[in-house]
Amino acid sequence: MLRLFYAPHSCALASRIALNDAGADYELVTVDLSKGEQRSPDYLRINPKARVPALVTDRGILAETPAILAFIAQSFPDSGLAPLDDAFAFAQMQAFNAYLASTVHVNHAHGRRGYRWADEQSSFEDMKRKVPQTMAESCALIEEQLAEGPWVMGERYTVADPYLFTVSGWLRGDGVDIDRFPRVKAHREAMQARDSVRRALAD
Amino acid sequence: MLRLFYAPHSCALASRIALNDAGADYELVTVDLSKGEQRSPDYLRINPKARVPALVTDRGILAETPAILAFIAQSFPDSGLAPLDDAFAFAQMQAFNAYLASTVHVNHAHGRRGYRWADEQSSFEDMKRKVPQTMAESCALIEEQLAEGPWVMGERYTVADPYLFTVSGWLRGDGVDIDRFPRVKAHREAMQARDSVRRALAD
Repeated sequence: MLRLFYAPHSCALASRIALNDAGADYELVTVDLSKGEQRSPDYLRINPKARVPALVTDRGILAETPAILAFIAQSFPDSGLAPLDDAFAFAQMQAFNAYLASTVHVNHAHGRRGYRWADEQSSFEDMKRKVPQTMAESCALIEEQLAEGPWVMGERYTVADPYLFTVSGWLRGDGVDIDRFPRVKAHREAMQARDSVRRALAD
Repeated sequence: MLRLFYAPHSCALASRIALNDAGADYELVTVDLSKGEQRSPDYLRINPKARVPALVTDRGILAETPAILAFIAQSFPDSGLAPLDDAFAFAQMQAFNAYLASTVHVNHAHGRRGYRWADEQSSFEDMKRKVPQTMAESCALIEEQLAEGPWVMGERYTVADPYLFTVSGWLRGDGVDIDRFPRVKAHREAMQARDSVRRALAD
């Protein structure tokens, strides 16, 4: 059985929702980031990068949200969670997920985890002040991506949607007024109506 | 015909090498980052994120290195550049590429492009000072990944290899002594012997 190492409010929520969407049988293992459990020797054997999510499969362990999401879509092809038979559409979906991972999540992380890239308190405060700007700029690009809607890939719901939902859930805390981005807001509402999302948020 | 928007020394090198590996017919368009051409109105129509690479296809335009690399592998399946019939192995390759994009490239970018995440000169200098540490830490994880070798995925050369080669090319400039990472160094040497790499570096 699959096991997802997870933390509430982290980007691991995307993988959890996607597993629900896929109808996967999986066990959820919560890692308490506030207690530093991600740096425990036991967890470092699961993921030496000390991050969640990590997905334990019968073949080995996977990390990195974009890779896990595509793996879920490919492992449960009947769920239709990615355009698996269309390399260009698949790449568009992957590009969106890569942007969330390497730009938007990184922007967000500068609000709380500046110590990853700097050492001085003044730098952390400077980084934190800029987060509302960088997150709003990213959100404006995403708003364009949603022009077709209602989902990231247009009519088709894919694993890009739980990932966007996860990241857009950080906007308010990052000082971004989501009312400025009506498509992102509508996307959040459409996601919240899904059973897979409700079950993921229930605890 | 494919068109790759490219800049020397940028992460676009990975896509260029992969196109060579695939035997693809493509046109190279150089974007002069030092002149800010990536922010020109013409280029922003290609990629509104003002970054290279961008790959223009007959279906539309793709950005984000991990997505472009997988697209090249899927579009030229005979070249064997990814384990396309094995969802787990494909996900491992994608996870490696996602790590390069969202962690290692981001670490590197703090040395020169701190203005993306902060506003004060003191923050930029603080970030710059930390780059040798964060890049060495990332490199230590990559050294483990190469335990099987000689390629990222073991015996099989994939699109993860030109991406690693691209990123490991930044190490010296980032203050990392590559002699501390003999597998990464051997990987660079094995890459430099490939015709696809020599052609990409010829200009």
